[in-house]
Formats: sequence, C-alpha cells, structure tokens
Amino acid sequence: MKARLAALLALALGASARADEGMWMPQQLPDLADRLEKLGFTGDARQFADLTGQPMGAIVSLGGCSASFVSADGLIATNHHCVIGALQFNSTPERNLLEEGFVARSRGEELWNGPGARVYVTVSVKEVTDEITGGIEPQLGDAQRGKLIERRVKQRTARCEKPGMRCTVASFFEGARWFEVAQLEIQDVRLVFAPPGNVGNFGGETDNWMWPRHSGDFSFYRAYVGKDGSPRPHAKDNVPYHPKRWLKVSPKGVAEDDLVFVAGYPGRTQRLKTYREVKEQMEWAYPGTVRRNRDLLAILERLSKESKETAIRVNPRVRGLANSMKNREGVLEGAAKGGLLEKKAQEEKALVAWIDADPARKAEYGDALAALDRIQAEKERTRERDLVFQSLTSSSSLLSAARTVWRLADDRPKKDLDRDPAFQQREWPRLREYLERLERSLDLRADRALLRYALVEAAALPGDQRIPPLDAAIGLAPGAPTDEAGRKIDAFLDRLYTGTELADRKTRLELSERKTTKELAARKDTFLELFAALRPFERQLREEQYARDGARSRVGPVYARALLAKAGGVLAPDANSTLRVTYGVVKGVSPRDGLFYRPQTTLAGVLAKHKAGDEEFDVPAPVREAIRAQHARGAGPYVDPKLGDVPVDFLSSVDTTGGNSGSAVLNGRGELVGLLFDGTWETIASDFIFDAPSTRSIQVDSRYLLWFLTDVAKATNLLEELDAPIAVGAR
Amino acid sequence: MKARLAALLALALGASARADEGMWMPQQLPDLADRLEKLGFTGDARQFADLTGQPMGAIVSLGGCSASFVSADGLIATNHHCVIGALQFNSTPERNLLEEGFVARSRGEELWNGPGARVYVTVSVKEVTDEITGGIEPQLGDAQRGKLIERRVKQRTARCEKPGMRCTVASFFEGARWFEVAQLEIQDVRLVFAPPGNVGNFGGETDNWMWPRHSGDFSFYRAYVGKDGSPRPHAKDNVPYHPKRWLKVSPKGVAEDDLVFVAGYPGRTQRLKTYREVKEQMEWAYPGTVRRNRDLLAILERLSKESKETAIRVNPRVRGLANSMKNREGVLEGAAKGGLLEKKAQEEKALVAWIDADPARKAEYGDALAALDRIQAEKERTRERDLVFQSLTSSSSLLSAARTVWRLADDRPKKDLDRDPAFQQREWPRLREYLERLERSLDLRADRALLRYALVEAAALPGDQRIPPLDAAIGLAPGAPTDEAGRKIDAFLDRLYTGTELADRKTRLELSERKTTKELAARKDTFLELFAALRPFERQLREEQYARDGARSRVGPVYARALLAKAGGVLAPDANSTLRVTYGVVKGVSPRDGLFYRPQTTLAGVLAKHKAGDEEFDVPAPVREAIRAQHARGAGPYVDPKLGDVPVDFLSSVDTTGGNSGSAVLNGRGELVGLLFDGTWETIASDFIFDAPSTRSIQVDSRYLLWFLTDVAKATNLLEELDAPIAVGAR
Repeated sequence: MKARLAALLALALGASARADEGMWMPQQLPDLADRLEKLGFTGDARQFADLTGQPMGAIVSLGGCSASFVSADGLIATNHHCVIGALQFNSTPERNLLEEGFVARSRGEELWNGPGARVYVTVSVKEVTDEITGGIEPQLGDAQRGKLIERRVKQRTARCEKPGMRCTVASFFEGARWFEVAQLEIQDVRLVFAPPGNVGNFGGETDNWMWPRHSGDFSFYRAYVGKDGSPRPHAKDNVPYHPKRWLKVSPKGVAEDDLVFVAGYPGRTQRLKTYREVKEQMEWAYPGTVRRNRDLLAILERLSKESKETAIRVNPRVRGLANSMKNREGVLEGAAKGGLLEKKAQEEKALVAWIDADPARKAEYGDALAALDRIQAEKERTRERDLVFQSLTSSSSLLSAARTVWRLADDRPKKDLDRDPAFQQREWPRLREYLERLERSLDLRADRALLRYALVEAAALPGDQRIPPLDAAIGLAPGAPTDEAGRKIDAFLDRLYTGTELADRKTRLELSERKTTKELAARKDTFLELFAALRPFERQLREEQYARDGARSRVGPVYARALLAKAGGVLAPDANSTLRVTYGVVKGVSPRDGLFYRPQTTLAGVLAKHKAGDEEFDVPAPVREAIRAQHARGAGPYVDPKLGDVPVDFLSSVDTTGGNSGSAVLNGRGELVGLLFDGTWETIASDFIFDAPSTRSIQVDSRYLLWFLTDVAKATNLLEELDAPIAVGAR
Repeated sequence: MKARLAALLALALGASARADEGMWMPQQLPDLADRLEKLGFTGDARQFADLTGQPMGAIVSLGGCSASFVSADGLIATNHHCVIGALQFNSTPERNLLEEGFVARSRGEELWNGPGARVYVTVSVKEVTDEITGGIEPQLGDAQRGKLIERRVKQRTARCEKPGMRCTVASFFEGARWFEVAQLEIQDVRLVFAPPGNVGNFGGETDNWMWPRHSGDFSFYRAYVGKDGSPRPHAKDNVPYHPKRWLKVSPKGVAEDDLVFVAGYPGRTQRLKTYREVKEQMEWAYPGTVRRNRDLLAILERLSKESKETAIRVNPRVRGLANSMKNREGVLEGAAKGGLLEKKAQEEKALVAWIDADPARKAEYGDALAALDRIQAEKERTRERDLVFQSLTSSSSLLSAARTVWRLADDRPKKDLDRDPAFQQREWPRLREYLERLERSLDLRADRALLRYALVEAAALPGDQRIPPLDAAIGLAPGAPTDEAGRKIDAFLDRLYTGTELADRKTRLELSERKTTKELAARKDTFLELFAALRPFERQLREEQYARDGARSRVGPVYARALLAKAGGVLAPDANSTLRVTYGVVKGVSPRDGLFYRPQTTLAGVLAKHKAGDEEFDVPAPVREAIRAQHARGAGPYVDPKLGDVPVDFLSSVDTTGGNSGSAVLNGRGELVGLLFDGTWETIASDFIFDAPSTRSIQVDSRYLLWFLTDVAKATNLLEELDAPIAVGAR
C-alpha cells in the first residue's frame, strides 16, 4: 500500500510540475499545443486563437470583470460579486437585492443595470507596433516622445472605432509590442439572476481569499441591443442580443486532475517589472495602501453603523477597499514568506549574467536595466505628493465630479485628437453616465470624511513635495502642528460642502453639457473653484508623467526583448485587461506543513459553516432546507459520485488575477464547468512572481449553479434556456 | 490513477472503521486479540495484561500525567508540559527555566523537583468488588450506605499499603466493579532535561488543541530511591532507581498507517453517564467553567503584567485555567456541532428499548435510569451553592492552607479509619508538602483577587442556596445591591489578609503539626477563623454527598451492567486515572469539508511558523540554526525518507484524554516511538461520546526528541544512556 501511495504521489508531483505559468494571449495557444497534449488535451489548440470561433467568441468583458455568453439569447454568466453594482442600482432601503438576491421569472422582469453597465465582446486583435513606436526621431525629448506615442494611440483608436464598436490600443511586453483590440460595446445590460448575498458572498470578508470555500459566486446578466441587432443605449423596446457563440453549461462539472482552461480579462500583473520597481511596490506602495484602506474602512464602517442608507450607498466602496486591502496584505505576507524580493533579485541577476555572457546581447540589452532604474529613482522622488494628489479625486466623488465637469469644458473647444484620452468624445457618454450614476453612491458625510483624510495627508507632506494650490486654498504649511492643520481643514470643508450644487444630479449633468470654463467659474461653485485652482498643478504632474513615459518607451522594450529572448520566445506578457487564456488542472495543495487543501467542497460544508445571526455565515433558510432535502434524497443529477454530495467550489492550478473574476472555466470540450472567482491567500503574490506548486485559483462548480437554480431558485425559465437536464419538480 | 486512488481510499476508510473506542484496562487486551490482529499486530496481546512485564512494567504515573522508564537507571520520559512544576520550582527571576529549558550534563546537575513530586509504578491490580459492595443490608439509609462503602475502601487500602507502596481502591463501571491498585511510590524525582519553552510549548495557547502542530513536548525526569532500592524522601545520597522494565526509544519513529499503542493514566471520561447527567455538564457546568476561567484569567493576566515575580508564581495556574477553559469550549463546540446531546438521547433511548424488549432484562435493569435521574435532579437543586463553596478553597491558597491545617487538627485525635480519606495518616506527608510547596506559587495579590471573585459569587447566590457562615462573617444578604456587597467584601478582605500568618511557610508547617483545634482557635488567625466558621457547613454538605453516593451505589451498578450486557461484555470502563491501554493507527483526518490534516509535521514547519518577537512562535535561534544545518545536510539518522525531513509531531486514532499527557506511544514491538501530548480540537467532545472518524490524538515523534538531543541540546550523556544511534558530532 505504501509503495502504491508513493507512486501516486510521484504522479501528482509530476502533474504539478507541468502546471504552467502564463496568462496567454489567445494567439499564443497554438505554440503551447505540446504542453496541452501532455496534460491530456485532445482538441485543437488553434481553436483558441480564433477570437470569433468557439469557445473564444463567447468570452466577454464587463469592464473589470469577465463573463461569457451561455445562451443564444445573450444570457451571460458571471460572478455574484461582479453584479454588485447592478444589485445596488436596483436596491432600495425596503428591498435590498444585495441581501435578498433576485430572480427574473420572465424577460419582462429583468432589471436594467444602470447607465454605466457594459458588455464588451472582443472581435479582433491586430498588431500595431510599427504604427505606434516606429520611425520616431531618436533625438526627440522624452516628454515629446511620450506625447507622440499617446497621439498615435489616439489616431489609431479613432480610425478603428465606429458606432457600437470600442477600440483599445494596448501595450504588451513593456511597450515592445502594441495591439489594437476591437470590441463590440453593448450598452443595455440587465440583471437576470443573483443568489442571496449569503450564498453569492457566503463567508464574506472572513472567507475572502480563503479555502475551504463555499461561495455560490454566480449570477446572470442579459445583453440587450436595438431591434436591428446593434448596440444601443438602454431602451424599453431593445431586444436580447444573439451572440454567434455561447457556451454550454456542463451538468458534469469537474473532477480531480481534470484539465481546465480559463478565458477572461485579467487586469494587471507585474511579473516583467524590474527588481527596483517591484521593491518600491513591496516596501512603499503596498504597505501604504494597507494603512490607508484600513483607515478609510474604519471611517466608512462608523458612518454605515449610523445610517442604513449610508451603508447601502458606500457598500461597493467598502467592499472594494476591503478587497484591495486584503489583497495587498496577502501579497506582502506571501512576498515575505516566499522571499519574493530575493527571488526577484536572483532573477534579475540571472538576466544580467545571461546578457553579459554574450557581446552581441550585451550590445543590444546591456544598458536597459540601468536606464529603467534611473527612471524609477526619478519617479520615487515625488511619489508621496503624486499619490496624495491622485487620492483627492479618488476620495471625494464631488471633487471627482467637479474635475469631470471642468475637464470636459476645458477640452471641449479642442480638436478630438488634441484632447486628453480620458476626455475625448468617445468617453463623453461614459462620463455623463458616471455623473448620473453618482446619484446612487454619493453620501455627503462619507464624501467629506474621506476627502478630509486626503487633505490631512496633504497637510503632512514634506516641504519639497507640497501641493501649492492646496496650501494656498486651506492655509496649510509644511511642519505646521497637526491640530492647527486639522482645524483649518475642517473650516475649509465647511465652506466647501455648503457652497456646491454638484450633489444635485441635474446640476451635474447640466454643467457637463456645452459649458465653457469661464461659465463654470462664474457659478462660484466651491468644488469647481477648488478643482480650477488645482488644475495647473495637475497639468504639471501630467507633463512629468509624459517625460517618464517617453523615457520608459525607449528602454522598456529593450529590457522586455531580453526577457523574451532568454525565454526562447515563449513568454506570456503581463496582464493588461485584454483577453487571455490560462490552463491548469483541478487539484488540491498543501498550504503549510501538516495541512492539505482538498480540491473540492460540498453542500455539507455549507451547512457546517452555517451560523445563525452571523452576517457572513447565516445560510438562508430555504437554502438549508434544500440542502437537507438533497441529503435526504441522496441521489440527484448534480451529485458527484466520488464526493457523494453536490460539489460547491473547487481549486485549480490556473494562473489568474483580479479582472479574471467571472471568467468561464472550460473543460477540454469547451463547455463551461465553472466560474472563476478568487485565488487562495497563498497565491496572491503570484501577481509578482508565479510559484506553480503553491498557486491555486478558486472556482464555483457548474453543478452548484445548476443545483441552486433547480432546488432553491426553482428558475424553470433559466434552466430551460440553459438546456439543463432536469427541470424543477421533474423528479 | 483514479481507480487506484479509490482503492486506496477504501483501504483508508476500512482502517478508520476499524479504529476502536476504548481506554482499556490492561487485563482486557487479551479479549481484543482478534481486533489487534486485523490491524497487523503480530505480537501476543496477553503481554499487556502482565503489569510487571514488558512493556507495561515501564509505564508510570506522575499523578496527573503519564510517563515511562526509558533506561535501566530510572530515566523517565514525559511531556514538557508535565514538568512545568519542576521548572517553576527551580526557576528564579534571574534564571527562568520555563523559558530557557534545562540540560543536566551529569547526574550531579540533576535538579530536585520539589517535595510534592512523585513517580507511581503500578505493581498489581486486584478485583475487590465483593469486599467493597458485598453483603450490605438493603434497608441501610443512603448516607449510612455511602459511609460504609467509604469505610470499606479505607480498610482495604490500609491493609494493602506498606512503606513505599501506595494503594488505591477505585470504582469502575459506575461502581459495578472495584479494583485495588498497588503502586510503588517514588518520592525523590529530579529534572534531567527540558527544552526551552518555545520548543516544549511551541505555539502556546494559539496552537493548544490545534493541528498542524510543531511542539517538542518532551522532557526527562529521573527517579531516585534510597541506597537499599526502596522509595525514600529526597536526600542527597539517594541513588537512581533501577526499574525492572524500561522502553527502548526508537530511532525509527512512525509512518502513516502504523499501528500504535498508548499506555498511560487517562484521568476522566464520562461516556457511561446518563443523558441527564451529561445534559447538566453541557448546559450548566461547562458553560459556567468557561465564564469563570475567562474572568480569573483576566485577573491573573492583569496582575502578571504588573510584576514579573507574580507572573512566574501564577504561571502554572494560568496555564491550568486556560487549558481547562479551552477544553470546555472545545467540548461545547464539538457537542453543539456533533449533536452530542441528541446522540446521547438516542443512545439512552436505544438502551431503554433494549431493556424493555425482554421481560428478564426489564426486571433486572428497568428501574435504574429513572432512579439515576432522580438522584441527579436532587443534586441540581443546590449546585450553585455547592460549586461556590468549593471554589472558595480552590481560589485562595491561604484559605486552602487554613482548611488543611484545621482539618488535620480536627481529625488527628481520631482513629485513622475514622478520619476523612483526605486527612488520613497516609496523606500527611503529601499535605505537609503541599503546605511547603505553596511557598513557590503563593502570591498574595493574586490570592486576594481570586478569593474576592469567589466571594462576589457567593454574595450573588439565590436566597434558597446561601452559605450562612459567609453571610454572617461578611454581612451579606441575598438580593443586596452589588456595590454594597463589594464594599463589604473588600472590607472583609482587608481584615482577612492583615490578620493571618499563614503566608509564612514556617508558621504553616508548625501549625500543621500536633496542634488541636482549640490551640488553633487561640491563634486568632483570620484565615483559620474563617475556615472554622465554614467547617460546620462543610460537614453538612459532606453529609448530603454521602447520601447521594449511597443512593447512586445502589443503582449505578445496575445501569452499568445493562450497558455491559448490551455490549456483549466487551466495553471499556470510563477513565478513572488508572492504568489503561488504547490502540489506533497513525493517520490524518478531514476536520471539515475541503480540508485535510496530514498525519505528520516536520522541521520545515517549525521554521515556517517562526515569528520573531512573538512569545508563542519565536523559535530560539540555536534551534533555527540547527534546523537550517539539518536542511542543508539533507540526510541524517532521523530524516523520514518519505517526508524528506525530520518529523516533529504526528496524529493517530488512539483514544485518550487528560492525564494521558506524557504517555508512551508504542509500536508493535513495544518500543517508544513517541509521546502523546494532546488531542485535536475536533476530538475534545470524545470525553462524552467517542466519534471514531473524527477523533485524533497528537504525539511528538521519537525522532524529533532524539534529533533535538543530538543537534540542539548536544546531550551526549543522555544519548548514550538512551543508546541512540548517533552521538553528538559523530557524523
């Protein structure tokens, strides 16, 4: 028996050694055919390179989350935590969809997600490296170079876009390659189904990033278009979109050791960054975010306790802050335990040695690293100031609205190509929707409290990194006593919040239309005046940024080409919110000595975690009853024969990051066997260095989804649309 | 691969289904020969029944802990947490052995453990049921019956004991059977070796009852006797005891699925108690202990922070309170999760049904349960008062000393057989040692604070459960305002602690010798006066207890005989601090859905848990260096080939409880492969109901012990004595 066990272990280790790093561009998949074959893949790897074919044509982005079409009528599967905005938009103090969930029993009951909701369907990806970075005069100044590249990106984008089509020109491999991504932009998105909060978000912050996990993190949207089939703003008589491709939701789910693919839109990784760049993240940026988010969360939690309405309004922000804080903490813990910086230093040393070992390589790549280090050092000189300046508008929705209104007016007289990319005509509808959507999340007490926090930070900046317009407006000075600064800030905020009309939706929208900055200034709105005072300084910071971007665009590509050459050409670029495919196997992992995470959880575990009255673990009564009925019944279409229960979540060795949330998990036949929604705590540092033996993503099994629709939601309409094997009440 | 895995799982499940409940009396082992054979045991089960043979002759009790001889020179292996008293006795503020550990490099360096330390070697166990409960007139009153049984126990004990030999007459199966246990009582016990606190108690309260575990919970004592080989009080020229039997410490440790035996002195289980008795524990006694211990710990922690000396003095009490609190919490949590009370109710229902199914059984056992329920109901009537009264002396060492002194004087004029068992002549040396040993742990601030807590509880007792002598002494009355009671208690304590000499060691000892109660009363010592006032009430409570004992001695045996008959005669009695043997296999367990406890931990895990500056997880630098050196070396005599590292702790399915701490873990050849020191959190409720699939004990592997002695302690003398394979520096 022991010999057999040893053999098994060897096999398992083999499989783990084969699990590959990489959020691959779809067109790279054919290069990986050999590796996939070794994992048991019998399909054609080239199918992944066809963006409009099966299955890639079904993979969509929600902007920040991933999703996929699962019916011919534009039904979209994604995570529960990706539809929070839609739930919040449709919630009232009387009817809290975040808590209760939602089931549309017919198309007519489907709820519009609000003006900002989008579905993006990638239709083409074209390399445009020459068009963006080719033929630039070497002697051009850095800032000029930065501006030129931005202008070329805008030109290219403008040429690509047409009504209903959104284009992005994105940098890959540190600017060594550029691709133009064209996406259909569906603007009318509606909520079809979401489970109760204590199913979708079961375990809350306590279980976030944790295993064992028992979240039912699934939900459905539907994409609507005009009667002619093309994207249109929300309208009552819009009709469901009919995608060319959609995924079959598998009633079979996954088993241990199954090969799975995850297709989605991972947001950002930093694996190709230099040691010095990563070091700044680990030693300065991440610890700072942890501290700041903890402070902001304490502020918002206090305010939420005082008012139920505030609680609903700030809920998405609270979740965002908590999630990013836990992410940062996890990265830092993982980095410390795994010796990330030492490993990164070794990697870089190995790269330098590889470059130095060959005169031709040395000639080509020899200077890049030192140049990148100089750019980074320059950036660090003003990082405290730059971060605080940014956090002013990210703290206060009113200041952010003032900025939007002002910048629109400022850029409106210009030709579109001369406008800042964020304020080009293509962004106007989105900006307008942003100003409208604010209505739902704006809470004046929270807004003021968060802005105060940012101003206190500004007051504490060192003498060589001040923000002069703020010092002037508030009367701040470096080194002044904290008490005094606090009093001045409070007095300033008193004036600020009594002299503005931007909290009024109509005013915001009216001001954003056809106004000049002169007209805006005449309004004497305190928030507009504050932003107007900040604007010249914002320009200055932007100019500094252009110079850094220009400088980096010279050497970043050289450095990345060295990395690519060293890897023999097969290297995945860092995630950049574009469509990617990763593969791996369903498997458990030992997170630490003496402990093992089994690869799957079950309904029994949901019941075992139930804790009445605990806001994170109180399983809704109908769910508990359905589980007990399922256990009493024993058999059923979604019972895993090995587990003897309906599976809930599973672990796999795929390589994912934020943005991948809601991604379709596909089996070798391209069927949807699950939805990715998280990574384990031990995985988080993989944004910087991928550690194959320890990294695991967390997915919900398609069988839990189907079981829930059948036994709890009794969503006959959806089950029919999904062509699920067992209708409600059929057994 | 999956088919093979399924086969493996089936084997594993089979093994788990075979793991048996039971802390068996050694003489029961031959009845279990079949079961042992199925687990792969090739030895003779009868060897366990021979108490003076190999290996049972080597198993000893320390009174509260278990241990075993491991050399011909009386070297004794036990847990680090079993030698805390000895470490404390030998510690000073300048030299804290609790923190530093201790290594005697020669016999001369071995440290006396103090006057109370004992080693008990069981030499015979004889059934005496007839002598204790035979031929009692049925019409005798309950209290008289209780007293008669106590008197017979005393007579029997007196007849058995001789110098150096301690006897106990113990009840098994609820009084259905009685056994006389004769033990050699070794009185000179010395500390030979203890690791630093952060090895022996590594993980502290955080890891207590937890897995994965990395404690090096091992230590060595040595038994000393007079030159003639018989037990003697501590004296400089005593010599090492030469036991007839000792265990070989195995350099091979254990592997997964190995059969292991654990031989030791489990303290108390309550599996044969009735539903109503268990219900009281779950719903009243255990929750009360949790609350009280939490309060007392808060008090002691506050005082410990204020004074390093207090911290050392109260350390054993703090650990005791914390341990029992965590135990109670675990039992309650396990009971709630596992539905203990429902299971117990079902068990009892099944017993009743089995009895009712047969007229002869009904005639024999039919009334027992109802009678036990009545006794329990009567006991519950005064339980608050009885508990508070008890807690007076357990709170205050000074009041306890007063009681000891007074009771000795009170009973001294009587014939020994007429004395209370706790104050018979055989107890005098122990009582004297207790009064002397107090010197080390007595802290007046802590003593007063804890007594105050008990008095506040007494003040709050309901009107029908008052303690009149306390009410009279302090001026308390039921329902009086808390503030007023508090003020009166404080004033009373002021008088109490200024009017006593019992804090003085000499006075305590002098008063305990040859004094009459009249002479004691003449001292006008406040604590003696307090106890004298309480004494008549203590007598009354004792009388009530006799009545309950007598009543229970009528029906308890009937009930137990029903249980035995239902089990076909093969049933382990509840633990009662007598020698027992349990068996099981080395194996992991799934504590909850999606998680698996692997059966072994390693040195790598010790390093991974290291946290500089954390009092529970700061691994001493020499240990870290030795681990790193071991890892650099790779190979070594104690490296487990499968784990690729030196094993630390392991899980097994043996059935143990408090008192088993320090027990020898034996392989099939009777070699010591580990020391038992804990159970997993999920196991604790097994004191009431044994759940074979979830229950696991935690042991330290003999290889960690030997590795530590070799690579860290470099204890050449001990390694030679243990006949370990590799001497220090030999490789």
